[in-house]
Amino acid sequence: MISNIESTVVSTRIRLARNLADYSFPSVLHSAKQAKEIVRAVYDAASGARAFKLYHMGDLSDNVAQALCDDHLISAELAANKKYGAALIDESGGDMQEGKFSIMINEEDHLREQYIADGLCLPRAYGLLAAFDGELSRQLRFAFDAQLGYLTACPTNLGTGLRASVMLFLPALTRLRKMERVVREISRLGHTVRGVYGEGSAAEGFMYQISNEVTLGVTEEYILSEVQRAALELVSLESQARKSLREEDETGVRDECMRDYGILRYCAKISFEEFLQRLSGVKLGAALGFIRVRDFRALDALAARARPANVGLLSDGALTAPERDVLRAELCRRELAENTEG
Amino acid sequence: MISNIESTVVSTRIRLARNLADYSFPSVLHSAKQAKEIVRAVYDAASGARAFKLYHMGDLSDNVAQALCDDHLISAELAANKKYGAALIDESGGDMQEGKFSIMINEEDHLREQYIADGLCLPRAYGLLAAFDGELSRQLRFAFDAQLGYLTACPTNLGTGLRASVMLFLPALTRLRKMERVVREISRLGHTVRGVYGEGSAAEGFMYQISNEVTLGVTEEYILSEVQRAALELVSLESQARKSLREEDETGVRDECMRDYGILRYCAKISFEEFLQRLSGVKLGAALGFIRVRDFRALDALAARARPANVGLLSDGALTAPERDVLRAELCRRELAENTEG
Repeated sequence: MISNIESTVVSTRIRLARNLADYSFPSVLHSAKQAKEIVRAVYDAASGARAFKLYHMGDLSDNVAQALCDDHLISAELAANKKYGAALIDESGGDMQEGKFSIMINEEDHLREQYIADGLCLPRAYGLLAAFDGELSRQLRFAFDAQLGYLTACPTNLGTGLRASVMLFLPALTRLRKMERVVREISRLGHTVRGVYGEGSAAEGFMYQISNEVTLGVTEEYILSEVQRAALELVSLESQARKSLREEDETGVRDECMRDYGILRYCAKISFEEFLQRLSGVKLGAALGFIRVRDFRALDALAARARPANVGLLSDGALTAPERDVLRAELCRRELAENTEG
Repeated sequence: MISNIESTVVSTRIRLARNLADYSFPSVLHSAKQAKEIVRAVYDAASGARAFKLYHMGDLSDNVAQALCDDHLISAELAANKKYGAALIDESGGDMQEGKFSIMINEEDHLREQYIADGLCLPRAYGLLAAFDGELSRQLRFAFDAQLGYLTACPTNLGTGLRASVMLFLPALTRLRKMERVVREISRLGHTVRGVYGEGSAAEGFMYQISNEVTLGVTEEYILSEVQRAALELVSLESQARKSLREEDETGVRDECMRDYGILRYCAKISFEEFLQRLSGVKLGAALGFIRVRDFRALDALAARARPANVGLLSDGALTAPERDVLRAELCRRELAENTEG
């Protein structure tokens, strides 16, 4: 049986906003020479610590840019900044269980350092990113004020520059229409909850992200423990909601989950939207014990691989949407046949 | 690969209308005593030839009556004749590949002898029923006129009293909207084509029955060869239609069939209407080679077993519709898992 935490928490993300003391903030930086200097300086400093690959936004194909956005490794804003924007992506090849480092350069701040990994691992994730940040700080002079802390382009990031996020899969709370109340209560605690790809609806896989609002006047440890507490509260609420869902109409829920599973096991083509919706049913079915899954995490990895941009990367040539739908169905059939038992 | 005939022809049915010379036709028979004499006489004569079970319509539960109707062993009209109606059902236990004899007593005619078997086997089916009819005629005096032949209550059955029918699965002709034209052409040849359970629509499993119109002034052999010719013509038209369907959009057809298959493999509840529709997709998928089936005939046997009345017979107590839907899904999952490979 999969634990509630494993079947609810998808991943943890830590982000640190940093700026270089010797340059203007990106929004007021109008010199290509300076922008290049920043990219070079960050790249040199980061490469000392890990093997990064440098991506210039101006050089990226739309498909690769989209794939990096979908993976939360760059933002849409950075991708749009084709003139000065760049990103360093950890290419040490580890999977998401090991986690992945990245740095956006010349986004809203000079640096947005990030570490993302599977599961609930806020202290570990912060520890790793903080150590990495420490190494960078030995070679880069960060804009820092003794009283305010790290200086950032937007005051909402001032101080620690830390945003700690946890991605959660909340199908039962969503289906029982309890999310609105939950979001209200969580925001009262100083956190935000929002859909990872939009509204968090069925079509988006019932995925939500909780993260801290406040970055100033609190310690990093306080932020981490508060986000962790709220995330665990959400896990517990979701687990109660799953129990209610099951008690209300076990056959109905089982039927829905198993039909989603049957379709993903055998379909010959499928759009990403439908895939995401049906995969949510499979994940819920696995969480409720209807479907045996060898590796629950692999279902989220499959969701990532099935995204349009990632499916697009499976072929050398440009693929049409119908061609992607066929490849996605193939991927899906194979993975589920290997990883699950209905 | 399944042959076109195997994947298109479901079953063959031969029916002979006969009356006893010493009694009035059932429609004008108003004596319970005489009705009972007829039942007794037919039962005695038939039992000499085969092991029959006698059902009095007045004694049947609605569920059993419905199950016999669904199996085409009795008609709704006979089931409604609770006063005088009876039926003899072959209980020798053979499956439908061996075929099944039955006699309706006091329906429109005193006797409606019938033989029904899987596949296309008109001459064999007629031979078996004619031999059986011969044995009956040694003990029963049939109403027979040297010029007209067998006398029947309705003139449309006069002469041979023979109705030869072939049940066909015509999903591609139906989907390509060619059935209306086909029905028109077949009726020009003196045959009728109609949906087995109604309109022959998707919801009814795309099942049609072709049978002869004319019973008078032609030999039995002529009727059989004409119905056979028309049935084979339908097989050939359906097979062309399947080819067109596939050429037009192979991925689309495959996707539909495989989704139907996936749902039947894993659903936790299913109505008979939906089941029939999805089973048609599975049969079409098997005919087109998308799904491997060990025993194609078993899919039609499954359709029979999944009917509401038959599912109702699985339990001693009365079942609600939702309970039947759960049992049907269970039956379906098990059978498809054993008999097919997606």
